[in-house]
Amino acid sequence: MKCKKCGAKASVNMRQHKLALCKEHYLEWVPEQAERFIKKYDMFTHGDRILVAVSGGKDSLSLWDILVRLGYQVDGLYLGLGIDGGFGYSAESHRLAEQFATQHGLTLHVVDVEKEYGQPVPVLSEMSHRGQGKPCAVCGLAKRHEMNRVARDLGYDVLATGHNLDDEAAVLFGNTLHWSGDYLVRQGPVLPETPGLARKVKPLCRFYEREMTAYALLRGIEYIYEECPFAEGSTSIYYKEVLNRLENDRPGSKLTFYLRFLEARAEGLFAEQGGRAQELHACPNCGQPTTAPGLCSFCRMIEKVRGELRAS
Amino acid sequence: MKCKKCGAKASVNMRQHKLALCKEHYLEWVPEQAERFIKKYDMFTHGDRILVAVSGGKDSLSLWDILVRLGYQVDGLYLGLGIDGGFGYSAESHRLAEQFATQHGLTLHVVDVEKEYGQPVPVLSEMSHRGQGKPCAVCGLAKRHEMNRVARDLGYDVLATGHNLDDEAAVLFGNTLHWSGDYLVRQGPVLPETPGLARKVKPLCRFYEREMTAYALLRGIEYIYEECPFAEGSTSIYYKEVLNRLENDRPGSKLTFYLRFLEARAEGLFAEQGGRAQELHACPNCGQPTTAPGLCSFCRMIEKVRGELRAS
Repeated sequence: MKCKKCGAKASVNMRQHKLALCKEHYLEWVPEQAERFIKKYDMFTHGDRILVAVSGGKDSLSLWDILVRLGYQVDGLYLGLGIDGGFGYSAESHRLAEQFATQHGLTLHVVDVEKEYGQPVPVLSEMSHRGQGKPCAVCGLAKRHEMNRVARDLGYDVLATGHNLDDEAAVLFGNTLHWSGDYLVRQGPVLPETPGLARKVKPLCRFYEREMTAYALLRGIEYIYEECPFAEGSTSIYYKEVLNRLENDRPGSKLTFYLRFLEARAEGLFAEQGGRAQELHACPNCGQPTTAPGLCSFCRMIEKVRGELRAS
Repeated sequence: MKCKKCGAKASVNMRQHKLALCKEHYLEWVPEQAERFIKKYDMFTHGDRILVAVSGGKDSLSLWDILVRLGYQVDGLYLGLGIDGGFGYSAESHRLAEQFATQHGLTLHVVDVEKEYGQPVPVLSEMSHRGQGKPCAVCGLAKRHEMNRVARDLGYDVLATGHNLDDEAAVLFGNTLHWSGDYLVRQGPVLPETPGLARKVKPLCRFYEREMTAYALLRGIEYIYEECPFAEGSTSIYYKEVLNRLENDRPGSKLTFYLRFLEARAEGLFAEQGGRAQELHACPNCGQPTTAPGLCSFCRMIEKVRGELRAS
């Protein structure tokens, strides 16, 4: 297989795009594509201050790398969740995020959930009795809350996450299997800003997971290979497997599924269900917009944990 | 496993319903459920004249059997498509449809495509250059056209087909993977009547395929076991396999996928896209409503075949 641009030996072959590229041209192609998606979906401009959520994994570190290469003003945010899994998962991912920032002379903000709220995520999850034995629901809640908080407190315009096509297609697949209307009408590359919440964007949403792996490897980005120890057996991994089988049988079907969804929605497939802003009010504790009556879900969870601690 | 109703040895176990039944109670349960769906979706009443499209397969013969047992006025329609496949597929399915009608003293209308239009379906398909080497597209077109024609000409109120949950979920899955909006807004247990077209209903749409197989076997209905020889390798069979794997891993997911879709649509998930009637006009040849400019697709196909014959 030869590189389509220069004829040298190809490093990456993308069946779904009918495109093979050598290392050099692949490392050019990825940021070009990312820039195309950023413009196509009006994600941000060079005047915006961007905060990228960095987990230490291939997607978020590659995203940071790409945005820096494209000349955007972008700082990182690492959230310490306190997950060990027998191999120091959080500690190692923190180390790799710091290492990347140092190597490239970039600013990394670090928030440690245990320092802020008294307990690491797995303990918060146990003590709040959420999520049926798995901390994933509380983890998602904590990450969303802290990302929003830091973006607002530090005045960033945009919050960028490293979700790739496999992530997005798996979420869409789950929402579709259950026809979760509220999620279907909102899922996408951009969630617009609302008072108190920065715009959220996913510049990698059209890259296959294996394309991001190839990018990180070819760029020499050191990232954490291990999945979160709690991810095993998760529904999202199951949906990814189903979609991978579809993709394997019919190359491009994952991308078609996601892109046709975005197109069909843009063409007005779904009924207007009112924007996110309409039903929101500010949480009396943290000030973040919430649909819940009274405290937002995160502050309610923290309250519950503090109540448990006082009672014990 | 014991029958939930009488404690005798169960013949059929339905994991997704958490229900096991003996032969006797299963054969009661199926028509009860069918009646429930007929009422729930307002399919028809005892005053309506119903035409059931009978292929000689387990679903359509079981449907006919169930509707007769429920006391509906229901005649059959067999369409001779002229498919051989090396084992006389059409001839054998015709024989089984006739046998069922005779055994139960029922009226079966028979239309033979070759007698009506000069050529069997596979030849029509070849000569009209439709469907990329497979006659399935032309077959679907011919079946729809002839079912509609006979229902209208003979004054039936309702046209019933034997589509089961597996069929419906597979169609929905395909329409969803491609986000085919026009199909998504219309697919369902009932397609309302429009001027010149009888109402179309699918009373078996909530029964799993294996439930219908069990019904036909336990009722002693003789049906054609073979699939249509052209079905092999079809997209719909592929989607059924994908859904069967999902169902196997998570019992009930096929039913949830279909029912939640119907619910979400009824709750207004999709934007109004205008009813079917608005864009229709009568085909100047056959009089059937069509969206195509000029002749309907079927009449255009027949015209093309006749043109080819004249030219040769």
